[in-house]
Amino acid sequence: MRKIINKPEDFVDETVDGIIAAYGDKLKLLNNDRRIILSAYPKKEGKVGIVTAGGSGHLPLFLGYVGQGMLDGCAVGNVFASPSSQKMADMIRACDAGKGVLCLFGNYGGDVMNFEMARELVEFDDIKTTTALGRDDAASAPKENADKRRGVAGIVFAYKIAGAAADKLLSLEEVTAITQKALDNTRSLGVALSPCILPEVGKPTFNINDDEIEIGMGIHGEKGIEVRKMISADEVAQIALDRITADMDISGGDEVSVLINGLGGTPLEEQFIVYRKVFSLLKDRGVTVVMPHIGEFATSMEMLGLSVSVIKLDSQLKELLKAPALTPFYTNLNR
Amino acid sequence: MRKIINKPEDFVDETVDGIIAAYGDKLKLLNNDRRIILSAYPKKEGKVGIVTAGGSGHLPLFLGYVGQGMLDGCAVGNVFASPSSQKMADMIRACDAGKGVLCLFGNYGGDVMNFEMARELVEFDDIKTTTALGRDDAASAPKENADKRRGVAGIVFAYKIAGAAADKLLSLEEVTAITQKALDNTRSLGVALSPCILPEVGKPTFNINDDEIEIGMGIHGEKGIEVRKMISADEVAQIALDRITADMDISGGDEVSVLINGLGGTPLEEQFIVYRKVFSLLKDRGVTVVMPHIGEFATSMEMLGLSVSVIKLDSQLKELLKAPALTPFYTNLNR
Repeated sequence: MRKIINKPEDFVDETVDGIIAAYGDKLKLLNNDRRIILSAYPKKEGKVGIVTAGGSGHLPLFLGYVGQGMLDGCAVGNVFASPSSQKMADMIRACDAGKGVLCLFGNYGGDVMNFEMARELVEFDDIKTTTALGRDDAASAPKENADKRRGVAGIVFAYKIAGAAADKLLSLEEVTAITQKALDNTRSLGVALSPCILPEVGKPTFNINDDEIEIGMGIHGEKGIEVRKMISADEVAQIALDRITADMDISGGDEVSVLINGLGGTPLEEQFIVYRKVFSLLKDRGVTVVMPHIGEFATSMEMLGLSVSVIKLDSQLKELLKAPALTPFYTNLNR
Repeated sequence: MRKIINKPEDFVDETVDGIIAAYGDKLKLLNNDRRIILSAYPKKEGKVGIVTAGGSGHLPLFLGYVGQGMLDGCAVGNVFASPSSQKMADMIRACDAGKGVLCLFGNYGGDVMNFEMARELVEFDDIKTTTALGRDDAASAPKENADKRRGVAGIVFAYKIAGAAADKLLSLEEVTAITQKALDNTRSLGVALSPCILPEVGKPTFNINDDEIEIGMGIHGEKGIEVRKMISADEVAQIALDRITADMDISGGDEVSVLINGLGGTPLEEQFIVYRKVFSLLKDRGVTVVMPHIGEFATSMEMLGLSVSVIKLDSQLKELLKAPALTPFYTNLNR
């Protein structure tokens, strides 16, 4: 197995140990539990809590967005598996400052079910919670069934905007409404050139031929919409933008942000080559790009491929996107 | 070929176009030349210039360290090839503010030769220059021939420290001496699990078996010191530290910084698993780690593998390492 690991069953615990060894002044565990990460950054009093959860194997997603101006906590699951409702409930309790907690996470069955149970558990402690779901993957269901879509890298925009809204000391209802607007305005499309290997499995669970690319594949290797013979970077950009704009109107004069997300194995150079074309296609339409993000934001370990996400901005979303955020894995201070 | 690119011969130009499309307010081209990148960040008056150069295919190395508190300029070569002396000379001229320019780059034949010619060229313009060479790869030559060693990811520490020293408005001689001390105090060891593919070649130029790991491989696939059957993450950490400390004394009470560098294809999770062990081995020796760096700093496109770099700090180096730096690809504000 081409992985630099120890025992596969220790993969997640040892990853978290490494993260805490490196950033223990910025992130902390709740009661030494390696599956509950909390922000150790200074926090504003009376702020709504923003939390997430999800499986491991996607760094910097999910725990990488815990920090100043973004998330207050993250429950950590096994590789590609949801954490338990109990961990989520403990985390929500730790992140509530009396103003309630927004649970912001991707639309996957296990996470949805476990967060629902967790919210019921903390209701007994009189903690108010709301939910907002990342469903940006435009390839994962047709427009008519948009509520069935999966969440992918576009959720990073929502983390950013939710955190900034909470920092303004808005109410739980207001923060939730703004976050929902950000999610509604975000679409993504991913392409993959290779599978990834789960540490405890030791080999790829499916195969993509060397000369093929899968359009619309999910970040756990969920089936896409089409397998093609290899295409160029410019074609990838065109296909992604076609799919995104078929789903969400983007017209001349609009402002958007763009996130090019490497899936783990794809070089940064290729991500910039794709961004170049996305930028130029948007420019041709009279659309302005604000604060683009290019890099690895939501990975599938060593998977080759990338995704393109676009968020349509109004003045409120733009201001919140630009508000400073700082976590050990993310900042927008240099974007 | 498993790459998301257009024409292989456009790989570098299109990468730079994407970078300028994204960060054109922070980085700029000299006279629209895609091979000369200059900082567009506000700069202190009367500062010594710090420049570098090197081949493409290593993002964020080299141009990614151009920005505030680090480099003023970078000449960009073709994939794994040195840029010309003419480009270097143009860049040096653009980065001189009358106080001279430090040329800080890795010890590779082409870069050494071309910088030597470039320095001769700018001498006619009365620009004072000095040179400092990254030679941190402890596997690339025995200790007796340390001046023949290649530069790898450890040079990032030198970029950081040189930039901070220049920002203090120290003289060219002082900045050069401090940078040389940083370089002298840095050692690295890398391991690779796969080759990478040059865009214009289209296939790997060598092979590593699926169950093998090469110790000491360079970032262009230069031969290492040993090929082994696959070993664990903890063994990688141990081998790297053994090699580094055999070469440079690190004792109880010392302070160091550590940089774990993903070579492009290796997941961030694995980098943290290795960091965890490096941290614990150093702790066992009574050594304190200051501001660790974990992530991709010097890549070989999609190569699987990572390197471990250690810099031994005195109070001066520590202060300069911690001084804030901000480029589109790097910051230490969140470390």
